[in-house]
Amino acid sequence: MTGKAMVLEAFKQPLVEQSFEVSDLAPGEVRCRISAAGVCGSDVHMWHGNDPRTPLPMILGHEGVGTIVETAGEKLDLFGRPLKPGDLVVWERGLMCGQCYYCVVRKQPALCPNRKTYGISLGCSEPPHFSGCYGEYLHLRARCHMLRIEEPIDPAVLVAATCSGATAAHAVQLSKVTPGDAVLIVGPGPVGIFCLAMALQAGASAVYVAGTSADRARLDLCLEFGASDALVVDETTAEERAAFLRERTHGVGVNAVIDCTGTPRSIPDNLPLVAPYGTYSIPGIATPVGELPIALFEHLARKNVNLQGVWVSDTAHLYQSIRLVLTGRYPFEKLVTHRFPLAQADEALRVMESKAAIKAVLLP
Amino acid sequence: MTGKAMVLEAFKQPLVEQSFEVSDLAPGEVRCRISAAGVCGSDVHMWHGNDPRTPLPMILGHEGVGTIVETAGEKLDLFGRPLKPGDLVVWERGLMCGQCYYCVVRKQPALCPNRKTYGISLGCSEPPHFSGCYGEYLHLRARCHMLRIEEPIDPAVLVAATCSGATAAHAVQLSKVTPGDAVLIVGPGPVGIFCLAMALQAGASAVYVAGTSADRARLDLCLEFGASDALVVDETTAEERAAFLRERTHGVGVNAVIDCTGTPRSIPDNLPLVAPYGTYSIPGIATPVGELPIALFEHLARKNVNLQGVWVSDTAHLYQSIRLVLTGRYPFEKLVTHRFPLAQADEALRVMESKAAIKAVLLP
Amino acid sequence: MTGKAMVLEAFKQPLVEQSFEVSDLAPGEVRCRISAAGVCGSDVHMWHGNDPRTPLPMILGHEGVGTIVETAGEKLDLFGRPLKPGDLVVWERGLMCGQCYYCVVRKQPALCPNRKTYGISLGCSEPPHFSGCYGEYLHLRARCHMLRIEEPIDPAVLVAATCSGATAAHAVQLSKVTPGDAVLIVGPGPVGIFCLAMALQAGASAVYVAGTSADRARLDLCLEFGASDALVVDETTAEERAAFLRERTHGVGVNAVIDCTGTPRSIPDNLPLVAPYGTYSIPGIATPVGELPIALFEHLARKNVNLQGVWVSDTAHLYQSIRLVLTGRYPFEKLVTHRFPLAQADEALRVMESKAAIKAVLLP
Amino acid sequence: MTGKAMVLEAFKQPLVEQSFEVSDLAPGEVRCRISAAGVCGSDVHMWHGNDPRTPLPMILGHEGVGTIVETAGEKLDLFGRPLKPGDLVVWERGLMCGQCYYCVVRKQPALCPNRKTYGISLGCSEPPHFSGCYGEYLHLRARCHMLRIEEPIDPAVLVAATCSGATAAHAVQLSKVTPGDAVLIVGPGPVGIFCLAMALQAGASAVYVAGTSADRARLDLCLEFGASDALVVDETTAEERAAFLRERTHGVGVNAVIDCTGTPRSIPDNLPLVAPYGTYSIPGIATPVGELPIALFEHLARKNVNLQGVWVSDTAHLYQSIRLVLTGRYPFEKLVTHRFPLAQADEALRVMESKAAIKAVLLP
Repeated sequence: MTGKAMVLEAFKQPLVEQSFEVSDLAPGEVRCRISAAGVCGSDVHMWHGNDPRTPLPMILGHEGVGTIVETAGEKLDLFGRPLKPGDLVVWERGLMCGQCYYCVVRKQPALCPNRKTYGISLGCSEPPHFSGCYGEYLHLRARCHMLRIEEPIDPAVLVAATCSGATAAHAVQLSKVTPGDAVLIVGPGPVGIFCLAMALQAGASAVYVAGTSADRARLDLCLEFGASDALVVDETTAEERAAFLRERTHGVGVNAVIDCTGTPRSIPDNLPLVAPYGTYSIPGIATPVGELPIALFEHLARKNVNLQGVWVSDTAHLYQSIRLVLTGRYPFEKLVTHRFPLAQADEALRVMESKAAIKAVLLP
Repeated sequence: MTGKAMVLEAFKQPLVEQSFEVSDLAPGEVRCRISAAGVCGSDVHMWHGNDPRTPLPMILGHEGVGTIVETAGEKLDLFGRPLKPGDLVVWERGLMCGQCYYCVVRKQPALCPNRKTYGISLGCSEPPHFSGCYGEYLHLRARCHMLRIEEPIDPAVLVAATCSGATAAHAVQLSKVTPGDAVLIVGPGPVGIFCLAMALQAGASAVYVAGTSADRARLDLCLEFGASDALVVDETTAEERAAFLRERTHGVGVNAVIDCTGTPRSIPDNLPLVAPYGTYSIPGIATPVGELPIALFEHLARKNVNLQGVWVSDTAHLYQSIRLVLTGRYPFEKLVTHRFPLAQADEALRVMESKAAIKAVLLP
Repeated sequence: MTGKAMVLEAFKQPLVEQSFEVSDLAPGEVRCRISAAGVCGSDVHMWHGNDPRTPLPMILGHEGVGTIVETAGEKLDLFGRPLKPGDLVVWERGLMCGQCYYCVVRKQPALCPNRKTYGISLGCSEPPHFSGCYGEYLHLRARCHMLRIEEPIDPAVLVAATCSGATAAHAVQLSKVTPGDAVLIVGPGPVGIFCLAMALQAGASAVYVAGTSADRARLDLCLEFGASDALVVDETTAEERAAFLRERTHGVGVNAVIDCTGTPRSIPDNLPLVAPYGTYSIPGIATPVGELPIALFEHLARKNVNLQGVWVSDTAHLYQSIRLVLTGRYPFEKLVTHRFPLAQADEALRVMESKAAIKAVLLP
Repeated sequence: MTGKAMVLEAFKQPLVEQSFEVSDLAPGEVRCRISAAGVCGSDVHMWHGNDPRTPLPMILGHEGVGTIVETAGEKLDLFGRPLKPGDLVVWERGLMCGQCYYCVVRKQPALCPNRKTYGISLGCSEPPHFSGCYGEYLHLRARCHMLRIEEPIDPAVLVAATCSGATAAHAVQLSKVTPGDAVLIVGPGPVGIFCLAMALQAGASAVYVAGTSADRARLDLCLEFGASDALVVDETTAEERAAFLRERTHGVGVNAVIDCTGTPRSIPDNLPLVAPYGTYSIPGIATPVGELPIALFEHLARKNVNLQGVWVSDTAHLYQSIRLVLTGRYPFEKLVTHRFPLAQADEALRVMESKAAIKAVLLP
């Protein structure tokens, strides 16, 4: 049996459609038919060769939802139930060793030094070729963590939960958001919008979102999700935004800033907005961005503030993210602004790059 | 200047309307005009003489919202802003010493051995007589923690947040509800309904509520708040309810049971429903209820379960509760099923006792 | 190649020495030569047929230290270093699935429903026979979590850390001991003594230990470990002990009671000793003990107390326990009061049963 | 009645001995006779006019131990016991309002915007003049948090616990040190040495201390306290120290760096040493130090690291610090290298400035 996939053969070049033979499954392995694959901002970085982890040739795609075609032996979901062909499933995108200090002592598998990720750090030149979601199939390795989806839902709506949503769950957890808090999300992309929903779910009584005028549609969606206000950074001064938030928080400031922009440029304006005892987290920083000068006394020491790195996510965050979407409390379907057949993956990457899309999804 | 109050002179007897002279304010003290006073289930207990803390004669009422009439010197709200006549305010109902091991080392002022509560442990025979909310005025002691309400809101809707809501915030905090959790609330009274909203706010993806068929209207309101399902305990067997929740939680059980019934009778049925590593909390237990046999191995040890006492609340919980109501995300206005003028306080106590009301409010 | 093991063929009967052929190793498996095997109190329970998990025939022994004889392929320790023959190692006694809700969402692998334990829930009738530590070899399954010991240490001193110590680490963690706390340990057996050291390590400024006059040697050892005082329960009244601890804690009570007795009999005397906001944990309860009446208002609700189950432990606790012993700060070598050759396992069980020993160790 | 005090009248000038009349006590106030006053590094900064909070004229000294001379009305200690003349006491050096968002909602009184500190932000030109510990008396304001010392101890040994120790308790708490962790303390002054002891108390299995060759005596004292090793930064390269710690931690790095140097200069060398998921805290940064470039991806984001500000301390930390010293487990008496009569306060400041002393104490 063969299947098609879009292969990244050379950086900055169009992806190439190829057919691969599916491989036999070793015990514990699972073959899925991809129902929907998300195009993530980091796919654009990889396409351009900006991520040091990218092997060539490879099949992009670390966000995915699929239906099971075949399992080798009995494969159980998180709840110990045997998976069977036809089940709609999601899976943890990272493969962790489950035996190291980070996995079993720290219980932070996101930091497992042996972590491999479908569509990011696995190439496709050797069998099993299907190792990214931009393909008709995905060959899931043994010990993959799997969650069966029983609720009726459009798979395309669920894809962003498998990466952006999980990362947002991690960021909100590390931001220690407590009931009654005020939160500022900077950067209203998919991670930012999930952070907004996650912060509301964590009890924030007010969540503000900052973006540029080019983000207008995204900011409007944020208001629909329940943001208290949208701040347009190129139509206001930093002083105006600071004064606005100070007034809204009775002089305290926001208890957490979650910066999803992926650049350090937003930090000088936003770090001063954090309330004493608050957190500034940077889930957007996923590639080297150089050094940023930080005023240690004024912004960290004097205010007891935590400047917090956030590295990817683990299965606990995936679970939280999937459950959040399935509650139906937020209009996540509106995140999916563009849908493409598999062969138009290049176009999907382009609409993500240009920010014409909030989330583009491939339907192989 | 004098004002009226309804005085509990003898247990089980009608409250007696009396007039008292208002007292001069010492520095830091505040006189409020009561806008709305909540009638709490524990007021009924006190009326009947079942609470050992009740001094006679006294003015009941520990839930209240008021407007400031006068302050002695500058009195600041939580955010350091001077309060002035006409401000709509709420206040922490407990007066804590702020200097003891519980207040400043444990940071658990709810457990301060010197804690006194308006309408519960302060009598009215000596000036300042106005020490409970069933009166036209309340004489707030120095060092009272005060929160100014700036959002437009019906004061009657806010009263339950000052006790039931704060206690619920405490219970949900101690239950360590995390995103994606399933929660069962037992007892859909005001505390239970606040626990439901607080659990949803804490990220629970499913909250179930159990009550009797006499609680039908309350259970319907719970569904309107966002409960996943209502379980009617006198129309189902314990086995049926257990099977239902097991199925809904994929065999895991609910991560937290929050038992707001105030009796131990519900525990034998519900303790087995807690998932391993979960919590069974008992915010409803506010008076002695005798001993209950617990199967330590099966329900606690083998499952790593926490049976957790919850004693009242502190200002952090009050703040969370007030902010929750002010977000407008939940229909808290529907909790207030009955409103009475001050002189009909007896009638208000009766509708609370009979459960004809969810929350009765006095409008002095 | 064959090796000897002491086999539990029938409950309450002498163990029988048998020889078994060692089995070939599957990929990831490891064969160890047992250097020292601990005899745990629960081994005595299993010997008597009181633990429902015990399969027959089986090789007892879930506490062990060994040296590697052979690995199948590259096997890494917790720090990612290849293990090789001759390495001194310890291992997590529980085998968890690493893929279920408890393992990867809750991150509580001790509660994994698929958990199997060497020397407790694995029989020896089928190859690989060597599945408990009362033998010359142990056949470690793939995905076993392993820690290489590089510090010079007598293996016999380390065995108790692999079960009693790890369980104690779990109990102290769940007891939320913070610097400056007062703690009471009830039951000065190996788990209790480890709890004492762990509580001191967690910052407790005073740790008291309660035992019977038959525990005199154990209580003396506790004083040597740094206990503040030893309470002899059959030479004092409950009132005297309560008064003593109240005086020592300035009226507050102990912030945590960790009850390692394994019976509910000690709870009525000791539950009242917990300070408000404290924890009463029951790591000793490992088999059904019936029901115990609990005064919910007086001992839990009014005091905001947590009655906390503690079920076994996971690799994080094992790591903490091993590191604690290796610091050399406590005289753990004095726990090992009896050493026996493998063939005298019955005698070792008897000295544990009679409490003549604190910890008996087999040296196969 | 009059008493003497050493007054800071002009920055960089010798302190001037003056006599002041003691003031009458208002209700809740307490007059202490200072038994021992600590000379803190920040006193040197204030002497030089480098701290913007310093009012002139003032009496320095925020670390102190005293005996009660008089109380106005009944004044209770933390445990609710009336204080009486002759009692040996310590007190929280900060006066917090106890009514603001930081005090009662966040429960972080160290961040109270109304916080005033004896010997730092209170002048002496108006009565009550005795507002710093460099004097025969201290006039403690109402609502001061007080702890009676009943254990036999040299007051001079306890003084450092009232500021350096409490700050260290705060730093170790925010560093989330857990049992088995490796910790690096940078800067072996009084705060660093307390951090060392606090980290050991929190369960760290290895604590390393870095200092310069001029700190040799302090590093030796650290080894006596239980440090695993001392790193001399001007006799090794950053690469050598990194390699050493990497080897000692099996490649992981230290779980927490607590930087007590007070300058940002040590951060570039030490931030890379933090293990993934670890914390870099900066309790030493107490005055503006400019901006420091931070590589956000490499040192924070990719490793999920927390760069954590630590601002002073509160009464919970004071309590932990006092209890730690009173356990007698660490040779805190060796911190007190110099003792002076009150009149030689200048000399005491000089030996602190030159680092000839670890801790200089005045004995008024």
